Amino acid sequence: MHMIATGIGSAYTVAMQQPVVLTGANFIGASSSTRGSATIQGIDPASGAPLAPAFFEATADETARACTLAAEAFGIYSALLPATRSSFLRSIADRISELGDTLLERANAETALPVARLQGERARTIAQLRMFAGLVDEGSWVDARIDRAMPDREPIPRPDIRRMLVPLGPVAVFGASNFPLAFSVAGGDTVSALAAGCPVVVKAHPAHPGTSELVARAILDAAGSTPGIPDGVFSMVHGASVAVGQALVTHPAIKAVGFTGSLVAGRALFDAAAERAEPIPVYAEMGSSNPVFILPEALATRGGEIAKGLAASITLGAGQFCTNPGVTIVDGSADSNRFLEALGNLLEATSAGTMVAAHIAAAYSQGLDEFASIRGVTMASVAADDAPNRATAARAALLVTDSATYLASPPLARELYGPATLAVRTGSREQLMDLARGLHGHLTATVHGTESELVEYADLVAILERKAGRVVINGFPTGVEVAPAMHHGGPYPATSDARATSVGTAAILRFARPVCLQGFPSALLPEELRDENPRGIWRTVDGVLSKDEL
Amino acid sequence: MHMIATGIGSAYTVAMQQPVVLTGANFIGASSSTRGSATIQGIDPASGAPLAPAFFEATADETARACTLAAEAFGIYSALLPATRSSFLRSIADRISELGDTLLERANAETALPVARLQGERARTIAQLRMFAGLVDEGSWVDARIDRAMPDREPIPRPDIRRMLVPLGPVAVFGASNFPLAFSVAGGDTVSALAAGCPVVVKAHPAHPGTSELVARAILDAAGSTPGIPDGVFSMVHGASVAVGQALVTHPAIKAVGFTGSLVAGRALFDAAAERAEPIPVYAEMGSSNPVFILPEALATRGGEIAKGLAASITLGAGQFCTNPGVTIVDGSADSNRFLEALGNLLEATSAGTMVAAHIAAAYSQGLDEFASIRGVTMASVAADDAPNRATAARAALLVTDSATYLASPPLARELYGPATLAVRTGSREQLMDLARGLHGHLTATVHGTESELVEYADLVAILERKAGRVVINGFPTGVEVAPAMHHGGPYPATSDARATSVGTAAILRFARPVCLQGFPSALLPEELRDENPRGIWRTVDGVLSKDEL
Repeated sequence: MHMIATGIGSAYTVAMQQPVVLTGANFIGASSSTRGSATIQGIDPASGAPLAPAFFEATADETARACTLAAEAFGIYSALLPATRSSFLRSIADRISELGDTLLERANAETALPVARLQGERARTIAQLRMFAGLVDEGSWVDARIDRAMPDREPIPRPDIRRMLVPLGPVAVFGASNFPLAFSVAGGDTVSALAAGCPVVVKAHPAHPGTSELVARAILDAAGSTPGIPDGVFSMVHGASVAVGQALVTHPAIKAVGFTGSLVAGRALFDAAAERAEPIPVYAEMGSSNPVFILPEALATRGGEIAKGLAASITLGAGQFCTNPGVTIVDGSADSNRFLEALGNLLEATSAGTMVAAHIAAAYSQGLDEFASIRGVTMASVAADDAPNRATAARAALLVTDSATYLASPPLARELYGPATLAVRTGSREQLMDLARGLHGHLTATVHGTESELVEYADLVAILERKAGRVVINGFPTGVEVAPAMHHGGPYPATSDARATSVGTAAILRFARPVCLQGFPSALLPEELRDENPRGIWRTVDGVLSKDEL
Repeated sequence: MHMIATGIGSAYTVAMQQPVVLTGANFIGASSSTRGSATIQGIDPASGAPLAPAFFEATADETARACTLAAEAFGIYSALLPATRSSFLRSIADRISELGDTLLERANAETALPVARLQGERARTIAQLRMFAGLVDEGSWVDARIDRAMPDREPIPRPDIRRMLVPLGPVAVFGASNFPLAFSVAGGDTVSALAAGCPVVVKAHPAHPGTSELVARAILDAAGSTPGIPDGVFSMVHGASVAVGQALVTHPAIKAVGFTGSLVAGRALFDAAAERAEPIPVYAEMGSSNPVFILPEALATRGGEIAKGLAASITLGAGQFCTNPGVTIVDGSADSNRFLEALGNLLEATSAGTMVAAHIAAAYSQGLDEFASIRGVTMASVAADDAPNRATAARAALLVTDSATYLASPPLARELYGPATLAVRTGSREQLMDLARGLHGHLTATVHGTESELVEYADLVAILERKAGRVVINGFPTGVEVAPAMHHGGPYPATSDARATSVGTAAILRFARPVCLQGFPSALLPEELRDENPRGIWRTVDGVLSKDEL
């Protein structure tokens, strides 16, 4: 058992009065459904022990019913007043809080992520729900635009046209393995879709089915207790096989997809969606290796400090972050020798991390071997093999190569998901720039440099702005703020759609499309587009931004 | 010869001093290139006569060079000050004006579109260029967002993060057949991409190669005379074969595609782009049949007036509009008998239109026959066969069916591109609603109704808002305003991406993606994100919209 300290998360949690019994069911709207024969079981990564109960993989019929119900709910849900939608989101936040230690305990058992980390992730999940509730209440996100009629315009009169964003339709969300709360059942994809006015069908990640059920029931409780929320606004299916995900993405009722995971799985969903009779957008966040460039003066003046920060960023959460710094670029100087030695020592001294699933740890281990087997790459340091369960252990590692090898070996450009970084040594400024130009798309790119050095390397920064969704100066890529200015996305293969973010308020824009209303009488206009501006939102009126009534 | 009245377009045009000699070349940046052996010739649709000169279809190498040059230009062009970009756009507008009658004459010869229509289209093209220049100068379109650092935040400090939209990269634009100016070489796709900071490679539409060359040279003149604009920011290739378009869309340097045309061609480009190693967004506007619902009281009180407006909308430009009203829904009353008789008489009395190309007219004629051959569909009226050239003639037509036949016959749901409408008679309100629910995606949907009737049918309007990009009340779908509130797009198959518009200022958003800059020193920030807000743009600072400096 994983013991939970008392009093944790007291800001948000209310003690549960009764123990929660997990059912293992799929949730087709408010109804439980256990029609299938295949089952999935949660596994404690720290011991390898299976966790009760068994969860029923959804049948094709169950998945289809969830999608159809979502389509039926869409008309009602999308037409609700924003205040109803925002109180639904706040109610989900409250229900998740009320799960208290039960949720942390189960998530810890299923993922081996430390309780303190899970508390932080729960706080983030709840804050995210409340942030989107606030966004919906404020209302300006719909980008309302009004061009008033000009009946006397020559040669022809201009009609009255008004435009705003409306929800796309039911959204399929795939829970992520590495964030059982913040990027899973009630994570960023679900909450931004619900905020936009889209029903959601979640495919729970098989690595944390119990955590998923707890959160699904919290959402369904919130739906049931918020007047006006139709059944079908939320469903959740279980599935370890590819078939469940494919059935979801190819169902005609589904109009968009949110996904966080591997390139292979994300691309398969993208392809399936693109091949539909009616193609739909897929927002797949597929990870990257997040290059970190450390410039010579920074190395010389604060190499030790950077090594410490970088080691912490590499090993955070056993390296299970899509923004993990997997590539570190330094020059060939004596300073960089010292830096790499310090970094190697720090990584070697860490205890082996426990990854959330054995197949993920195996892929990491295999990836390390593959990288190290490439001629010109050396395994400089690797942490001790001291994990409780070797099947899920991830040992921190430092690999070293040179830029010629890196550019000549495409396999080195792929994400090595786990607590490792590949240091690439460049022999000249020209090599450094070539390496930057040769990068494919990443979620983040980082530069460490002194003030004058950063100005001197402005061309490097300009290249990185074209290669990454977020460029970090003198910081570390892990730690993604949930805020309006965040962009968590990036050019392919970091994501399938460089225009989209899965973190921050702009995530809502993924699930909306504009509609233009021409010549509408006031009675038929939504509040956002009425002359009186009853919602008091920002609108572009005849090209000028204003909160005025007309 | 097509004679052009003197003095036309005097507001914009300056008389050309010398005749323009068409070369038939591809333009790889500023360089002409005629390496291929295959040629294309413009054809006068009114006579069937070929028009000199021959145009060289681009070779694979020429297309690739245009793309590579665009990629090279991207770094320079995207980093230019907005004022340079906007003066480039205004200079294009001036150069197009300066082409004067030469442009109208050639466009009229190649398309048989009347000169008055082409004057209007030229004015729209020029206004569009100036509108985007204004948008770039104003600058707030970049959706700048700043979340300031909170160094004392617990448990961890918040870094300074700043986000804005940046250009995607080189864009491939496919000229449309039906708008030789406004949706072609310097049309909405090109100008919105250039405004966003993206170089453009145009594939000229083979139905108006000479018009395309004139406009391409105007753009290249503007590029050459605007200091700072790099070679390669604009290229144009000719191609009648599928190979040229495929080569363009699959070239790794191309990062987005703008297209207006048929569903078959648009879907082929979408599929090719989705199958790339790095998939890219395709904004294909593929047309629709734009249903018009006429409610009983409106029929009774102003059926005659609506018939006149509808007949004009159907026959405008020989029906060559993506917003042509191809389906008209009425009830089974005596009023609707009278309405259809009036509409039929009006259509019958029109002269046959001349379409821009023989294969388009043939497809229309074949489509009419196909529709009429479906059991339950009757050809109620058809205009006289009085065109100068039968190969390009399009006779206006009214087909009539009932809602059961319409819903049971999927071929009737496709776009019949030309001056025809299919009247669908519904037997009850329930049938009307079923028909609306059964619609696929359209660019527009229209409802005619009295004030009280519109309120009574609010559920119909709500359904149509989910089916179309623009809903028109008591108007006609043709005539698309170029304005901030316009949305010219719609759910599949109207377009390949319901989130995008190809008309209006929001078209620029198709060619941009966000980038987030974390912890940047002021010297490395673009002006849009500096504390001082030197550009004076609207920004979201700590979640609040403002023009203030920080």
